[in-house]
Amino acid sequence: MPLRFAEPATEAYRFPLTIRHLLDSALTTAGDRRIVYRDQGSWTYREFAARVGRLASLLEGVGAEQGMTVAVMDWDSHRYLEAYFAIPMMGAVLQTVNVRLPPPQVAYTLNHAHAEILLVHRDFFPLVDAILPSLPGIKAVIAIMDGAEGELPPYAKGEYEALSAAASPDYPFEDFDENALATTFYTTGTTGNPKGVCFTHRQLVLHTLTCNAPFGTQEGTGFGYSDVYMPLTPMFHVHAWGVPYVATMLGMTQVYPGRYEPEMLCRLRTEHKVTYSHCVPTILRMVLDAADATGADVSGWTLTIGGSALSAQLCEEGRRRGMRLIAGYGMSETAPLVAVARIRPGTEGDEAAEIEALTATVPAPMVSARIVDEDMNDVAHDGRARGELVLRAPWLTPCYTGDAKASETLWRGGWMHTQDIATIDPDGYIRIRDRLKDVIKTGGEWIDSIQLEELVATAESVAEAAVVAVPDAKWGERPLAVVVPKPGAAPTLDELNAPVEKAIGAGAITRYAKLERFEIVDALPRTSVGKIDKKLIRANLAEMAKEVTAA
Amino acid sequence: MPLRFAEPATEAYRFPLTIRHLLDSALTTAGDRRIVYRDQGSWTYREFAARVGRLASLLEGVGAEQGMTVAVMDWDSHRYLEAYFAIPMMGAVLQTVNVRLPPPQVAYTLNHAHAEILLVHRDFFPLVDAILPSLPGIKAVIAIMDGAEGELPPYAKGEYEALSAAASPDYPFEDFDENALATTFYTTGTTGNPKGVCFTHRQLVLHTLTCNAPFGTQEGTGFGYSDVYMPLTPMFHVHAWGVPYVATMLGMTQVYPGRYEPEMLCRLRTEHKVTYSHCVPTILRMVLDAADATGADVSGWTLTIGGSALSAQLCEEGRRRGMRLIAGYGMSETAPLVAVARIRPGTEGDEAAEIEALTATVPAPMVSARIVDEDMNDVAHDGRARGELVLRAPWLTPCYTGDAKASETLWRGGWMHTQDIATIDPDGYIRIRDRLKDVIKTGGEWIDSIQLEELVATAESVAEAAVVAVPDAKWGERPLAVVVPKPGAAPTLDELNAPVEKAIGAGAITRYAKLERFEIVDALPRTSVGKIDKKLIRANLAEMAKEVTAA
Repeated sequence: MPLRFAEPATEAYRFPLTIRHLLDSALTTAGDRRIVYRDQGSWTYREFAARVGRLASLLEGVGAEQGMTVAVMDWDSHRYLEAYFAIPMMGAVLQTVNVRLPPPQVAYTLNHAHAEILLVHRDFFPLVDAILPSLPGIKAVIAIMDGAEGELPPYAKGEYEALSAAASPDYPFEDFDENALATTFYTTGTTGNPKGVCFTHRQLVLHTLTCNAPFGTQEGTGFGYSDVYMPLTPMFHVHAWGVPYVATMLGMTQVYPGRYEPEMLCRLRTEHKVTYSHCVPTILRMVLDAADATGADVSGWTLTIGGSALSAQLCEEGRRRGMRLIAGYGMSETAPLVAVARIRPGTEGDEAAEIEALTATVPAPMVSARIVDEDMNDVAHDGRARGELVLRAPWLTPCYTGDAKASETLWRGGWMHTQDIATIDPDGYIRIRDRLKDVIKTGGEWIDSIQLEELVATAESVAEAAVVAVPDAKWGERPLAVVVPKPGAAPTLDELNAPVEKAIGAGAITRYAKLERFEIVDALPRTSVGKIDKKLIRANLAEMAKEVTAA
Repeated sequence: MPLRFAEPATEAYRFPLTIRHLLDSALTTAGDRRIVYRDQGSWTYREFAARVGRLASLLEGVGAEQGMTVAVMDWDSHRYLEAYFAIPMMGAVLQTVNVRLPPPQVAYTLNHAHAEILLVHRDFFPLVDAILPSLPGIKAVIAIMDGAEGELPPYAKGEYEALSAAASPDYPFEDFDENALATTFYTTGTTGNPKGVCFTHRQLVLHTLTCNAPFGTQEGTGFGYSDVYMPLTPMFHVHAWGVPYVATMLGMTQVYPGRYEPEMLCRLRTEHKVTYSHCVPTILRMVLDAADATGADVSGWTLTIGGSALSAQLCEEGRRRGMRLIAGYGMSETAPLVAVARIRPGTEGDEAAEIEALTATVPAPMVSARIVDEDMNDVAHDGRARGELVLRAPWLTPCYTGDAKASETLWRGGWMHTQDIATIDPDGYIRIRDRLKDVIKTGGEWIDSIQLEELVATAESVAEAAVVAVPDAKWGERPLAVVVPKPGAAPTLDELNAPVEKAIGAGAITRYAKLERFEIVDALPRTSVGKIDKKLIRANLAEMAKEVTAA
């Protein structure tokens, strides 16, 4: 028999999962709640909804229409939140421009996304001055003066607030296909041009509904409608982890801090009693230093930490200050929610157990997470076996825009490949161990380079260490340590292997991890964001090998 | 320009919102957690998933296929939960049979739903014996002996556990159209035949994701993965309010109590430390009485109360016992989640404010709630103005199955009509004031009959009172009180009007509520579920009026 379907009443409402509907209940239940922007003002949800209508009207006035890309270059603001809603709600596509990229790459992403309208904060006028000649597709630029006096750039059609005030709040938003694109932005690859990811209305609504689900437990590892939210991950970066949509759907009080200035962040946190934020460890460090300098109280603040691993040390430091730090895992390709930390039931209050659990993450509802070997066979969920983490969820990017080859690689075998090497334990806790390209495959076993270099770095004479794979005729690959000695020290292989052998003895790492080779260097090469550049290390070693062969 | 769409990678996974995916993350994160059935056993989530596969295999073995209706008549059990998943996951439609209906109506619903396979608990063998001759569509009956010895009825194809044990756990569940029907059941109308509602996979997945969203705040008004769940609303009644799907998605420990026996409920609650349940006030009363009789501790138990209003008195009584009682609002047509109670931020710990807030409900995310007059014009959200509550949400029944006329009425004007008269306050708190058919429309104002009869019932000489509308040439309708006096008392109009006039003076009710007429009766007629039968009162009054005219 075929599947059965309902025969809906003629007038039965077909509810599309479009972004406008995230506002439905918030406007009933939180009409008087406020959205704050720095020390410059605040607006109720009712006013916010009117401003969303005004933004759509003003964009229509400068030529925006369905299917068009409208790009935003702004700091975290109530305006950005307006753009999060108004642009997709019109059926246009919001491009959140990564303003930290080098100018030619910013221009590349705008051209690649076919951006036709640009909203630009005055801090980025110099950037736009520089790249506008190479942006033939841009038809209109709206200047955001952000309260400052001064002349608009000659290419601006007008100023955001002035145009908004003159525009109608009653834009006739309509329902449309929930599979229409809503947002796009570009990942920062280490090589080549940035790659574009894109998300549909349906995906973002499902992401928003689900984001809330794994949080909000009674152990206080999440947030709810009575929390006060301030993002500390830029809104151009993966929808500020999707939380502005969740916060708005729930009608939470929200605080947008503009450009991240540590003292301002501390001030806003104190003044508005912010209880929930999210950020990468670097920003947290910056905030903690500012809090120490100004004496600001950070207790009672819950933060989801992502981007890099949340270390047990940082987690402990947060506890000492009365904060709750919780790991989150995701990436640009995943909207980004994949997994969040949670306390193991029954271990509440046990500090060691809580830290262990809060520095790992479990898959969110509707997320299917596997760890697989190179042939996509499942690897055991025993907390030790390593595999590439591959995913299914209703909100993963369907492609890299206009890059069919990269898209097919991303989705090889019907699962989205994270290129992260992970373990999963029997309770579903995922720990990211390495990047796929850095893992060392030797004798059928995977050694994660990070674990091995952490061991090597504990040797007395070592200041810093990196471990990379080098080709090996017998074993496929073998690990090689690149070591920066402490001043005056001269590491030996035995000394480097001592902590490795101890770990092998304890069953913490495979016996194949024992080193046969190492190189001494003055310093480790690093990427522009400060990570050890293993790619360059491998290239340098290959070059050395060639020289050796040639000699 | 047209809307823009992505160009997905060939192998990109198209994630359908089908019920099988609710299990995805739970099996990773909660494989060893348990689902308990009475004092008869428990199964891990891993075992549960295998049993879901077995159920699908055994159903296939007796002829089940996509699009077929498979009906279940069981008490709340792990088996029912298996049916919640296995039957829709096969692409078949689960009919949750309301076993409390009179036998001819049970037969009507099975025939109307085209049920072809029936799973029946032994307690309902007599019922099936009686109606099977009138069920020509039934091709197979599976008997559930529930651990008891004894012979199977002659029409049974086999016993649930025996067939399950012999069936393969590896049923090849596949993805299919998320708009396929998943469940159907019948509402208990006071007149005519029960009406069938139906829900799709997509609707139930969205209901499940959203159910969790308004709960789980740090004020403890909801539940999360570390709670222990036990339903106290039958699983045949509106998916046990949808919570079994939520609890399973989150991997919560679950306790299914079988037939509701007060002492067993208290015992299970204590033994398994149940922290979250939901029920109607009547069941709560039954549980509290049993707790008093057995000395069971009920503190630390959160319950969502629905079906009828949660009174402030009951809410207070719960507090005194250390329970948290929270109002919920929904109906068969709404899957049922529409609105749940929440504490007003900033009033935590203020008992009066908490009770005020917890006895009302605010719309859940993705729920659009309006109150409207008869012409569908919006009525003010001031907590006083009354209107019919009409709804949009992604999970409302698209129709009454096979009843086009009732379906069109349900969805008149593109909004689902609840037939409940409500007020909404500026913070979105909805209070149900009356049923549309009971409200009294007089001089352009709406008087809610419940409020007026509560006032009349406070008069010294009154034991019980009902207020209904009677036609009036000048005012359209006027209220008439039907009063049961206390023994020996003789109510007068002035006496009945005294509390009404006080309320008018306080602005609590319109001045049009003042009574001009009342009737004395020995008893109020009641419906089969114990509600005052206002329809019969109105009919009796009309009959009396005819007699008066004739006389």
